[in-house]
Amino acid sequence: MASEAELIAALSKIFSVVDSNLIVGIGDDGAVIKASTQNLVAASDMAVEGIHFKREWSGLHDIGGKLVAANLADIYAMGGDPKYLLVSAGLTKDFGISEIEELARGIKCEADLVGAAIIGGDISSAEQLVISITALGEVKNPIRRSGAKVGDTVIISGLPGKSAYGLRQLQSGISDSSYIRAHLRPEVNYQLAIEFRGVNAMCDISDGLISELNHISSSSQVGIELDIELLKAASGFAELVELAGVDIWELVLAGGEDHIFVATTSAEIPAGAISIGRVLQVQA
Amino acid sequence: MASEAELIAALSKIFSVVDSNLIVGIGDDGAVIKASTQNLVAASDMAVEGIHFKREWSGLHDIGGKLVAANLADIYAMGGDPKYLLVSAGLTKDFGISEIEELARGIKCEADLVGAAIIGGDISSAEQLVISITALGEVKNPIRRSGAKVGDTVIISGLPGKSAYGLRQLQSGISDSSYIRAHLRPEVNYQLAIEFRGVNAMCDISDGLISELNHISSSSQVGIELDIELLKAASGFAELVELAGVDIWELVLAGGEDHIFVATTSAEIPAGAISIGRVLQVQA
Repeated sequence: MASEAELIAALSKIFSVVDSNLIVGIGDDGAVIKASTQNLVAASDMAVEGIHFKREWSGLHDIGGKLVAANLADIYAMGGDPKYLLVSAGLTKDFGISEIEELARGIKCEADLVGAAIIGGDISSAEQLVISITALGEVKNPIRRSGAKVGDTVIISGLPGKSAYGLRQLQSGISDSSYIRAHLRPEVNYQLAIEFRGVNAMCDISDGLISELNHISSSSQVGIELDIELLKAASGFAELVELAGVDIWELVLAGGEDHIFVATTSAEIPAGAISIGRVLQVQA
Repeated sequence: MASEAELIAALSKIFSVVDSNLIVGIGDDGAVIKASTQNLVAASDMAVEGIHFKREWSGLHDIGGKLVAANLADIYAMGGDPKYLLVSAGLTKDFGISEIEELARGIKCEADLVGAAIIGGDISSAEQLVISITALGEVKNPIRRSGAKVGDTVIISGLPGKSAYGLRQLQSGISDSSYIRAHLRPEVNYQLAIEFRGVNAMCDISDGLISELNHISSSSQVGIELDIELLKAASGFAELVELAGVDIWELVLAGGEDHIFVATTSAEIPAGAISIGRVLQVQA
């Protein structure tokens, strides 16, 4: 392990930020952000070695970047703009300055995609690598799971299942493919999430499409009808079904970690979104 | 491990909150808090089994409560009022609903002391128990480490070293004492931290008095002179020196985890604070 002074110097450099709203940044007991006229949105995500990632499959840059992506997706799923991240990590004995820098650069790289700044956190040692991130953002009109309305169209920002198929490929000994890259470092469509802001309900698909639709339908007290033909016509489906065969529905309906956004809307469907069903009254 | 549905039901009950500023609480992708006219202060702390606590010494109620205390102390050390906590945990295989509830009640119990609400987080499995908390609060005038002024009096909110001595007792096979209780569940003087708000610089002592004074002196570009006789006269010193003998200074000067507040002030010394030295010009 590196000394605390070395660590703080290395991290302060990587995470350096110019932001007139940041009154106190890394290095004090806490960070201080100027009062905003917008509502605050906050979400936390934790990734544990052996559970969420394997170091033999994932580099530290991707491990850090992927957790940030999951965290940012939560903020976008609420209709928010991510602004700040607090990053805590329990580091294993093999972590020297270069490992810490690689992890930090992966975190910074993903955060930079949306202009979010790393403003604090905590570092500990641990037997398993564990990273916990809290994202803070601003939101004008929060989009809840409970907002789905009868008659809404159900839309997704992309076809789920690529990450889950990439994981299967890794488990079967394949070391590189577009699916594996989607698993190790999902490319979240943050831009499309912004265009989803007029929707009535939204979720980030982290546990699978069916699971998230169940959350929306139960909290909105509506039914949801999926049109399998629409899913089959989605871009990427044909390629995936050719590879996955009969397992296709498990991947598409239960595969998480692509961080696709699912929403229900009564407004115009944003360009790039895929319609996959509609919201019905709950059946008695 | 309990099912996710059981978990969320149990935690939503323990962490239930009535707060008109909380627009969205536990159960969505993120929590949403109404815009405030105050600045936002945020701090994160992580506790890892075997590093920060041992399960053979600490009950889950104390493990949760102690980490919250450390986190709240960071917010108070910035001059802030803690309002909300996001709690992430990696839970070991032996965690069922009752273990999760005990940990959650310890977290809630400490948060209740200052009226803070648990509004979100994440749960994972892990081989070592790991808990990561982010505290969010409001602050009007942030108190930085860099604010110490030549001529200031150095004050502390209590004598450090009790927690460190309690840890030694545990290591030597003793199972209960006031010091051990101070180690397992420090009683942070949140009220006195509020009365410290007129100070020029403040820190929470998490790594030891000397270490924190070094942070203040280097970031404020001042020297600090400690008066050992004032420390010797502090309440609790006589009792501790009788037990610890020649090790007394290691405990008092390098013992952390009591979450004593250290500050430098040019205003009136708050009742209950202990003066221990003064701020000088840096020597050439």
